Amino acid sequence: MKLQVTQENLNKALNSVSRVANSRGTLPILANVLIKTTNNRLSLAATNLDIAITHYIGAKVSEEGSITVPARLMQDFVNSLPEGVISLDLKDSKLNVTTDKYQSVVNGIVADDFPVMPAISGGKKWTVDGTSFKKGLQQVVFAASGDETRPILTGVLLQTSNGKLNMAATDSYRLAEKQLSNNKEEVQILVPASAMQDLLRILGDGEDNIQVTHDDQQVLFQVGDIELVTRLVDGKYPDYKKLIPEKFATEARLKRTDLLNVTKVSSLFARESAGSVTIEVDSKTKQLSIRSVASQLGENTATAEAKITGSGSITLNSRYLLDALNAMDGEEVVFGFNGKLEPTLLFDPAVEDYKHIIMPLKS
Amino acid sequence: MKLQVTQENLNKALNSVSRVANSRGTLPILANVLIKTTNNRLSLAATNLDIAITHYIGAKVSEEGSITVPARLMQDFVNSLPEGVISLDLKDSKLNVTTDKYQSVVNGIVADDFPVMPAISGGKKWTVDGTSFKKGLQQVVFAASGDETRPILTGVLLQTSNGKLNMAATDSYRLAEKQLSNNKEEVQILVPASAMQDLLRILGDGEDNIQVTHDDQQVLFQVGDIELVTRLVDGKYPDYKKLIPEKFATEARLKRTDLLNVTKVSSLFARESAGSVTIEVDSKTKQLSIRSVASQLGENTATAEAKITGSGSITLNSRYLLDALNAMDGEEVVFGFNGKLEPTLLFDPAVEDYKHIIMPLKS
Repeated sequence: MKLQVTQENLNKALNSVSRVANSRGTLPILANVLIKTTNNRLSLAATNLDIAITHYIGAKVSEEGSITVPARLMQDFVNSLPEGVISLDLKDSKLNVTTDKYQSVVNGIVADDFPVMPAISGGKKWTVDGTSFKKGLQQVVFAASGDETRPILTGVLLQTSNGKLNMAATDSYRLAEKQLSNNKEEVQILVPASAMQDLLRILGDGEDNIQVTHDDQQVLFQVGDIELVTRLVDGKYPDYKKLIPEKFATEARLKRTDLLNVTKVSSLFARESAGSVTIEVDSKTKQLSIRSVASQLGENTATAEAKITGSGSITLNSRYLLDALNAMDGEEVVFGFNGKLEPTLLFDPAVEDYKHIIMPLKS
Repeated sequence: MKLQVTQENLNKALNSVSRVANSRGTLPILANVLIKTTNNRLSLAATNLDIAITHYIGAKVSEEGSITVPARLMQDFVNSLPEGVISLDLKDSKLNVTTDKYQSVVNGIVADDFPVMPAISGGKKWTVDGTSFKKGLQQVVFAASGDETRPILTGVLLQTSNGKLNMAATDSYRLAEKQLSNNKEEVQILVPASAMQDLLRILGDGEDNIQVTHDDQQVLFQVGDIELVTRLVDGKYPDYKKLIPEKFATEARLKRTDLLNVTKVSSLFARESAGSVTIEVDSKTKQLSIRSVASQLGENTATAEAKITGSGSITLNSRYLLDALNAMDGEEVVFGFNGKLEPTLLFDPAVEDYKHIIMPLKS
């Protein structure tokens, strides 16, 4: 293998792929990035066996070939080099990386040992707008569970319903659902949230379209010159739609930043009580008040003006409330609930394509 | 105690003092900040028994008094409040903190139990320009040791020599010395580097003059409305001046950013060898080259153009070299050394008020 690339391109590709490489695993080659010439281009790839990312860049190839080299060292090294042309020259399993001021030899492992994800065959293929997919994903992905004992909940559901693509995630304490655009294919796949986080990083400013290809084992996302393949989560996702309340005994409509600010302040006094805050909505005073008590440190009550229907109170985890409010970007938010034990709903009255449910705490 | 302050002032004062409060110690009151009315002003103070910081702010006091409250909670809380007037009202040992939207009760501990640093009496008093003191401190303080088994080396030496104030710090592997302006008082004090780090934070943009008062036990720094008192380190500082070489067998003069860049890249390959890099200076090729070897990962050689007198090579810890180069800000740097075991010196040929020594590694 012998070729020339620009520092800018090589750096970009190493940044896309290196994060899935892992030096703490049992297989040393998984800490490496695969560098391979392909039709006068260069592909860089890394995998953790669940997820694989490949980035294609332009290169002036004078001799075909491939090698794997330590991802972190290569990434840090190329990132530190000045802009300009870098020569890669493979001798035995040593990769010579040269610029006018730097000569390096990076010890590699032959590419034959690098694990390859199985190909997707006979699956479905569809395209989605990158900008809206990215925004939706950011509003949903954090609600997935990190607890591997219930694998189903570690996934983000992509599902068409009445011809529209929906995204949903839940950790059983809260649930987020985003409605995206129309989709020609019928879709129902459960993608690991960790792969979705990697996809978010790759999406950059999200201007490209995303091509999605999947069978019932794996999904491939193609964005510009980057490909991400991940295995799917296996199993039946809970029928979450029936959890979303449609009517409320109590409803408050107020400025989103007002609710965000009073929740932030209250959460400081809720550290001792695992984030527990009590929200009281009073249609007479036209105020939403949020109260937290730290037995040792003190207590806080904060109020915000709101348009209110019905009065009532409910106890929530303030962290979930903050997550939900931060995921929204509208001027106003509607906060509705029924009983003390039933799910609360937050949504933006101007858009209504995003719904966020939080289960109450026992109070 | 009953008074009104602005959120901005209270927030600023809490930010200055709260860092020395420590909730992990054995004395619970040391996690608190002392709030006290003093002549129609409000003082906020925190201490860890070695260092005490006090910040004075304006306030509309309607009832004198004092209390201590949890520093971290109070800081986070006031920081989250909107701009505007905050009312503080003490009832028993509970501090009521109120704005138009927020009502909080913060549980306090009576101020009588708060430890007070002894007063400085009959000491020396002098003033130094804040901007140059701050810059000098930043160039020196990181060279002090963090190892408490040799307390002397955890200090920053302030010493007058030929009427000029010098600052110096060393951890025995490297040494930094900065020459400041003329000083009317004869000074020789050893200030804990940790207190100097706190002082750096307080100095802000460093535009105020600093008033320094000290006896042989403690030093007081006064900057604007803030006071920092710290105990001094006791003991005789090594006579470091004789370590600074005055002539060199080998000397390279080059662009500081060039040396910084090649050192950065080399250090990536020096992770396995505890940062060890070998610098070779060759008067024939007019190049400085820096070489590092990672037995497992690979190796790197980087070169930079330099004006060179004498040839030779020396092995250094690349981290110390990076620290030194980052502490300097001139266009050029001179790098000089004698034998493989003697101290190397770095300095800016345009200024020469800053000297940085690094001891070589055995190679």
